[in-house]
Amino acid sequence: MTPAPTSRDRILTAARALFAEHGYTRTTLRAIAADAGCDVALIPHYFGNKQGLFDAATDLPVPEEALRSPVLAAPLDRIGLAVAQALVTVWDTPEGAGMLAQLRSVLDDTPERLSLLDSPVWRHVRARLEEDGVDQPELRVELAVGTLVGTVLMRTFLGSPHLSKVDTAELIRMLAPALQENLTGDLGAC
Amino acid sequence: MTPAPTSRDRILTAARALFAEHGYTRTTLRAIAADAGCDVALIPHYFGNKQGLFDAATDLPVPEEALRSPVLAAPLDRIGLAVAQALVTVWDTPEGAGMLAQLRSVLDDTPERLSLLDSPVWRHVRARLEEDGVDQPELRVELAVGTLVGTVLMRTFLGSPHLSKVDTAELIRMLAPALQENLTGDLGAC
Repeated sequence: MTPAPTSRDRILTAARALFAEHGYTRTTLRAIAADAGCDVALIPHYFGNKQGLFDAATDLPVPEEALRSPVLAAPLDRIGLAVAQALVTVWDTPEGAGMLAQLRSVLDDTPERLSLLDSPVWRHVRARLEEDGVDQPELRVELAVGTLVGTVLMRTFLGSPHLSKVDTAELIRMLAPALQENLTGDLGAC
Repeated sequence: MTPAPTSRDRILTAARALFAEHGYTRTTLRAIAADAGCDVALIPHYFGNKQGLFDAATDLPVPEEALRSPVLAAPLDRIGLAVAQALVTVWDTPEGAGMLAQLRSVLDDTPERLSLLDSPVWRHVRARLEEDGVDQPELRVELAVGTLVGTVLMRTFLGSPHLSKVDTAELIRMLAPALQENLTGDLGAC
């Protein structure tokens, strides 16, 4: 039997959903507590303050190692697939709502506009491209983040009728070729 | 000598900038009038109401024909480039701020979540893919919109350090291969 979620878990789940829907500024602790069905005083108890709760809710929901190994192990001509697998798999878990929350809040109003680029996966991809002598690794990672962010937005907030219906495995296969172009294709070709 | 912009032009310019920055709901007519340096009563005079002003500010800033011909004329294996040329060229004009305004407002709160997919360019691309017997044209267009939307967001609101520095022609060349994969690549390849 699955144990009942603790108050802390319920607060995190509610926080992910509300931060994703409304962004950081427009989400109140009171609304999160109401959704979680607990006393608002529990939030400072567990998380310190709103920023602390946001950080916990948007934490990468898998160990960093789980993202690093596939990116480092993939042949360079399959790195688009490795990145798609690592990231889409994370986004499509229930905790992936935390990634959406981060994206929504970055778009809205948080000062840390570039937190998306600091994620460990992209750090490893950049390092990998540099090692393998691919030109313009930083720009390529920004292009790949753009492809992924746009696709996720289409799948969620922008509610694309077809893209929101494909399953995780299909989405990974569909995204891989475009990410591969971003990361290792000829950027000057025309 | 370029003629001085009319009040109507100044209102449109201010509206594009403010709708892009804050989205539809959070932008007031008063703020737009203040930025344009004109009386707020001129806005209903020229545009009827806030929605009328938004529609005018986010109107496609080029004749539809200018977008249609390149998409129809391109060989299928260069359609990614044709789409990138048509759309990036529009986004990167001063009036392109209207497209950003639309994107920001769609993300924020407008009811018409799918207006992006209704744009004439995508309609022509869908028709073109159907004519040429490419599988899943609707899904492919959604993927391509995602790639473009994500890239534009990285270049603007998300402030990517490298991507925001490339010029229009470079961006077109960089985006073309990923868009080509989205539109004609093997979506099931792995």
